[in-house]
Amino acid sequence: MMGGEKETTIYDIADKLNISAATVSRALKDHPRVNKNTKKLIIKTAAEMGYRSNSFASNLRKKSSNIIGLIVPRLNSNFMSDVIAGIEKVLNNNGYNLFISQSLETMTKEISNANAMLVNRVDGLMVSLAYDTTNIDHFEPFIKRNIPIIFFDRVFEQDACPQIYIDNYKAGYEITSHLIKQGSKRIVHITASQLRKVYADRLAGYRKALEDNGIEFNDDLVIINNLSSEAGHEAANHILQMDPLPDGVFSANDICAVSCMQTLKKNGISLPADMAFAGFNNDPLTCVIEPNLTTINYKGYEMGEVAAKQMISRLMSKDELEPAHSLILKYELIVRESSLRGNHNSPNNTLNEPQS
Amino acid sequence: MMGGEKETTIYDIADKLNISAATVSRALKDHPRVNKNTKKLIIKTAAEMGYRSNSFASNLRKKSSNIIGLIVPRLNSNFMSDVIAGIEKVLNNNGYNLFISQSLETMTKEISNANAMLVNRVDGLMVSLAYDTTNIDHFEPFIKRNIPIIFFDRVFEQDACPQIYIDNYKAGYEITSHLIKQGSKRIVHITASQLRKVYADRLAGYRKALEDNGIEFNDDLVIINNLSSEAGHEAANHILQMDPLPDGVFSANDICAVSCMQTLKKNGISLPADMAFAGFNNDPLTCVIEPNLTTINYKGYEMGEVAAKQMISRLMSKDELEPAHSLILKYELIVRESSLRGNHNSPNNTLNEPQS
Repeated sequence: MMGGEKETTIYDIADKLNISAATVSRALKDHPRVNKNTKKLIIKTAAEMGYRSNSFASNLRKKSSNIIGLIVPRLNSNFMSDVIAGIEKVLNNNGYNLFISQSLETMTKEISNANAMLVNRVDGLMVSLAYDTTNIDHFEPFIKRNIPIIFFDRVFEQDACPQIYIDNYKAGYEITSHLIKQGSKRIVHITASQLRKVYADRLAGYRKALEDNGIEFNDDLVIINNLSSEAGHEAANHILQMDPLPDGVFSANDICAVSCMQTLKKNGISLPADMAFAGFNNDPLTCVIEPNLTTINYKGYEMGEVAAKQMISRLMSKDELEPAHSLILKYELIVRESSLRGNHNSPNNTLNEPQS
Repeated sequence: MMGGEKETTIYDIADKLNISAATVSRALKDHPRVNKNTKKLIIKTAAEMGYRSNSFASNLRKKSSNIIGLIVPRLNSNFMSDVIAGIEKVLNNNGYNLFISQSLETMTKEISNANAMLVNRVDGLMVSLAYDTTNIDHFEPFIKRNIPIIFFDRVFEQDACPQIYIDNYKAGYEITSHLIKQGSKRIVHITASQLRKVYADRLAGYRKALEDNGIEFNDDLVIINNLSSEAGHEAANHILQMDPLPDGVFSANDICAVSCMQTLKKNGISLPADMAFAGFNNDPLTCVIEPNLTTINYKGYEMGEVAAKQMISRLMSKDELEPAHSLILKYELIVRESSLRGNHNSPNNTLNEPQS
C-alpha cells in the first residue's frame, strides 16, 4: 500500500469532461454563472474521481452530503434488517446514501455515534433508541441546526421531531386477550427495559387485558431481561421454577420466545397444551419453531419506507416550519399453533388436555 | 424545527474548559505549543459540543476522522451481525466509530457507497463484496491515498490488501464427504453467484469430494440462486421434481437450507431418512429447525475481531510498508440430526430405513 500517487485535480476533471478547468473550478465553488446541469455533472464526476480539495469538500458539506445517518440499537434482528431495507429503497430512489451505526444498546455509544454523524454533516438522521437512553440532549445540536431527525420504533416522548411507531399498548392488550380466550389465566410476560416506551406500552396493554378479564396482575409473572436468545433460555429456567407453573407466556419479542420454547420443550413442557405462547415481530423464526409461534406482525419494511419518506419530505421543505407529525402504523395479530388450546377453564399448571 | 441558534464557537469551548480561547484555537489547529493531553481534551470537547469551523473540520479530516467505513452486501444474516459485533468491539476499544453501508448485492451501489466513504474521509475501509462485483477499481482511490482497506469473507483475488476468510474449498469438501459417508450419493448442491470466491470454492470442494468417492458430478444437481429464504422454498420445489429424487442436499448457507427443509417436509419428505441435509454458517435457525441442521461453524464474531485488529494495526503503522497478509480462519463441521442416516449403501430416492 504505497502512497505518493497524485490527488485528482480540477484539470483531471476538466480533461475527463472535455471542458475548461475554469468552469470546473467555478462549478465546484457553486458559482451562479455555471449552468445547473453542468454543475451537477461536474460535482458528480468530481465525487466519482475522488476529488477532495478542501473547498470542494466544505462546499459539498455546506450544501448537502447526500448522506442520511441511521442510529439503531443493534443489527441482529430480522425486524431491523427489514426496516433498513425499507429505508434504503426510498433513500436510493432519492439519490441518498445511508450510513448506519449501532448504539449497542447504550446511551454512551449513542451519544458518540450522534457526534460522529454531526461532524460528518449528515443531511438528516433517523434514530431508534438504545435500552438505557434517558434523554435526547445529544440530538439537540441537530435540531438547532435544522437537520431533520426522525425517531422510529423505539421513540421518546417529545414534540420536536416526527415519530413513527405502532400502538404497542393495543397490541399488548390484544395478544394478552387472545391468550386469555385460549384459557390461560396465569400468564408470564417477558419484556425489556421499561425506559423504552415500546416495552412499557406492551406491559401496560398486558395489565389492562388481565384487569378487563378479572385476573389480578402479579408482579412475579413479569420477567425483565434484554430479550436475547440467551435471555429466553434463562427465562425458561425461571419459569420452570414457578409454583404453580404458568399456563401462558407473552414475550415482547420472538427471538426470546423461541429460545424459551426450546428450553421448555426440552424439559417436558407440552406446547401449547401446558402453556400457550405468543411473541412479537413475526420473525421468520416463528414459522420454523414447532409449534409455530403466534405473534404480532409489525411490518419493518413498511416502517422503514414511511420513516424515509418523512425524511425526504422534510429535506425537501427544509426551510418551512413543518409540524412534527407522528405516524402510527398498523399491526396484526397472527394466530398460530403455539397459542391454540381451545377455550377451556382450568388450565393451571397441570398437564390438561384441551377440554373441548 | 427552527434554525437560527448560534453555532458553537471557540469561546464556548474555552468557557466550558476554563482555558483561554487562544489555547483552544491553537489546539484545533494542531499547534505544537499546546500540550498533547490538553489538545486531546479540547478536540474531544469541541466534537461533543458540535463545533464545526471549517478549519477544525478539515483538520479533523486531514488528521483522522476516527471513522472506519464498512461495506457489506446485506445486513440480514446472523453471520453478518456477528461479524459487525466483533468489528465494533475492537474499534470501540480503540476509539473509532463504525459507519456501515449496504451494497444490496449490486456493484453499482457498492461503487456509490465507496465514493461516499471516500468523500467523508474514513480512516479505513472494510469490505465484503456484492454478488455481482466483477472488479475492484472503485477501491483504487483508497489504495492510492494510503487509506487501509481490508476484505473479509467475500474477497477478491488481489495482492494489494489483506483478506480474511475461511478455506471454503476444504469446508465444502468436508461437508460433502460427510454426506457421502452417511450414504448419500445423489447430492444436490444449492449455491450462489460463482463470481464470488466463497461460493466457487465451496462448489469446487463439493466436486472434489464426489470425485474422490467415485461419484460422477452432475450439473443438474447444482442449483444456483441467491440463497434467500424464498430461494430455499423454490429450490425445494425444484428438488421435488427431480427424478430420481436426490438423497442429500448441501446448501451453501443455512437460511436457504432451512426453508428448503420446511417445504420438503410439508411435501412428505422425511429428513434425514429420505435426504440428508447440510447447511453453512451455523445460524441460530439450525437449532430451531427439526431435525437440527448439520452445518459449518464459521465464527463471524471472530472474523470481525480479526479483521478490525488488522485494520487497527494498519492504521498504527500507516506509513510503513506492511505486506498484505491474508488470514485464513478456522471452521468446524457440526454434525446434527439432519444428516445422520447411518452408513448405508443404497440410499437412492427410495424411502429406505437406515440399514444397520
